[in-house]
Amino acid sequence: MSATKAARERATIVDVARAAGVSRQTVSNVLNRPELVAAPTRDRVRQEIVRLGFAPNVAAQQLRRRRASAYGFEVNPSLVGKMGHILDGFLVELTTTAPGHQSHLVTFTADRDDVLAGYRQLLGTGLVDGFIVGDTRYGDPRPAWLVESGVPFVAFGRIWDLPALDQWVDVDGRAGMRTAVEHLLAEGYGSVAFLGWPVGSPAGDDRRQGWLDGLAGSTADTPSLVEESVQDLNRATCAAARLLERMGGAGAILCASDLLALGAMRAVRAAGLEPGSDIGVVGMDDSDVAEALELTSLRQPLREAAVAAWRILHGDPKGRAPALLAPTLIIRNSSTRSQEKKP
Amino acid sequence: MSATKAARERATIVDVARAAGVSRQTVSNVLNRPELVAAPTRDRVRQEIVRLGFAPNVAAQQLRRRRASAYGFEVNPSLVGKMGHILDGFLVELTTTAPGHQSHLVTFTADRDDVLAGYRQLLGTGLVDGFIVGDTRYGDPRPAWLVESGVPFVAFGRIWDLPALDQWVDVDGRAGMRTAVEHLLAEGYGSVAFLGWPVGSPAGDDRRQGWLDGLAGSTADTPSLVEESVQDLNRATCAAARLLERMGGAGAILCASDLLALGAMRAVRAAGLEPGSDIGVVGMDDSDVAEALELTSLRQPLREAAVAAWRILHGDPKGRAPALLAPTLIIRNSSTRSQEKKP
Repeated sequence: MSATKAARERATIVDVARAAGVSRQTVSNVLNRPELVAAPTRDRVRQEIVRLGFAPNVAAQQLRRRRASAYGFEVNPSLVGKMGHILDGFLVELTTTAPGHQSHLVTFTADRDDVLAGYRQLLGTGLVDGFIVGDTRYGDPRPAWLVESGVPFVAFGRIWDLPALDQWVDVDGRAGMRTAVEHLLAEGYGSVAFLGWPVGSPAGDDRRQGWLDGLAGSTADTPSLVEESVQDLNRATCAAARLLERMGGAGAILCASDLLALGAMRAVRAAGLEPGSDIGVVGMDDSDVAEALELTSLRQPLREAAVAAWRILHGDPKGRAPALLAPTLIIRNSSTRSQEKKP
Repeated sequence: MSATKAARERATIVDVARAAGVSRQTVSNVLNRPELVAAPTRDRVRQEIVRLGFAPNVAAQQLRRRRASAYGFEVNPSLVGKMGHILDGFLVELTTTAPGHQSHLVTFTADRDDVLAGYRQLLGTGLVDGFIVGDTRYGDPRPAWLVESGVPFVAFGRIWDLPALDQWVDVDGRAGMRTAVEHLLAEGYGSVAFLGWPVGSPAGDDRRQGWLDGLAGSTADTPSLVEESVQDLNRATCAAARLLERMGGAGAILCASDLLALGAMRAVRAAGLEPGSDIGVVGMDDSDVAEALELTSLRQPLREAAVAAWRILHGDPKGRAPALLAPTLIIRNSSTRSQEKKP
């Protein structure tokens, strides 16, 4: 889709005002100061905004404010710094690539009880023109609210509840897991068990499906070899120990994250076995822990994801939405059978 | 120092103009658009700015711009995400504590060849009111330039070359290392060797001094047991192996960082010994790797540092500058002699 074509197709604020039977100023108020507008009018205008697919033009906003555009990025203090949490890496890549897209990044934290409050407040300061929304989840109120409010945004993570919204970038965990299964079978581990998160998280379910995909294409038939653990090292170690008992001292364990994989490595060693030469172990995220422990892991293409996010946000014709990017398998000692072990 | 007293003592733009024999507008130009001012005049004005200690008032700037104040924070892509790099943790804490100080954070990257260019560019956009300058070093051009340019800032890390500038927050690595030596001696390791970075980095030299301080207060006399390595796992492992040979299979290794400590743990295991029960190992930064590997480490008080930084930046009477904060020793299996080993 070319930029010109997009501009031609895009509904204007006048279209929205006409359809809702209100003035242009009222539409603007609904977008910028909704508290000034009576609830029934506000709802009618928002319905028309969504129906017509109206989105304020980033370039026009930028011109009006006569400064570089800036975008808010939510930092979740309870997640950041945790092993395998990749949003801090994504933040760095967004910052690094921002100048090439005439953009700046403003970090903020959201309220735990009212997830939209932080977004509302930051918009109110006039500091940002839109958002990059990370860590999307089932029942996420942010995408719908941003569309209704006419605020430009791009999501890092699929917009799971609103399949019609394609303004997202994500990493194809499913394809990555399939690649990992193929690698483990090619290494001769015979069977590939799965240590995943409890069913119900979009990324976790997606990764589990990739494991099943990988098995479906092989002669190994082990889809019953699965255990679940939340993202906690001790619980992951226990879950992996249960899995190991059922595996009969052979095979490989594919894990939904590096932290789960670290638990698996601990369980393997506790059973008197060696990761790699005895039991294959693969994680996902390629955290610094994976590198330090010689753990094979799926690396997320964060630089590529950041560039795709900026392009989609700015309506750059080179940025195709949605963007589903493949992770790369970084092979280390934990998933190779014949190797020289490092000390 | 109370806020009122600070205001009374502070030189104004009029004082600078009078002293330099120029108009108020010229001083303002030197600060905001130096390219408009002839070099000799610019130099004269800058000399008076530094001599009179003139610093534009953050609150006044904020009022003038009629929006929340925002501060730039440089992200160094070559450092972030590396094990034990604590600036991403600091960024999260700055973001979390910003709303309590009516502030926002704008991340940016600096040019490798012209470290000031990124600062100049971001100032030029009008998006930020000042900076939080991390990763200070010997020969750092940023503090002097920011003072000369009249840009409000606070440093995370001492302003090593300009001892008269006290607007910084730092973590007392020296005190932390002394505490670690005392802990290792109390655990009965007998001798404490040091694995540090090559002499010449301010934080590294400071930590080494803390090790010497700790030995000086004890009966253990092992200041010759020192090896150096850059921040690289393989080199750290080799350096630790050399150190171990000289230690005769007993004692402890105190390391300047978690990455060096990870190398030490590898060398210990390669020598057929066990970290903790045979050789004590302590790192610094309390990275997620330290937690995963049961490595004792010095945790930096990043939340406290962020709050102190905001207070100093805003001239909050509760924020005393400089702020030198003590790290906390997090004791794990790698530095305790009698323990139940986790799998």
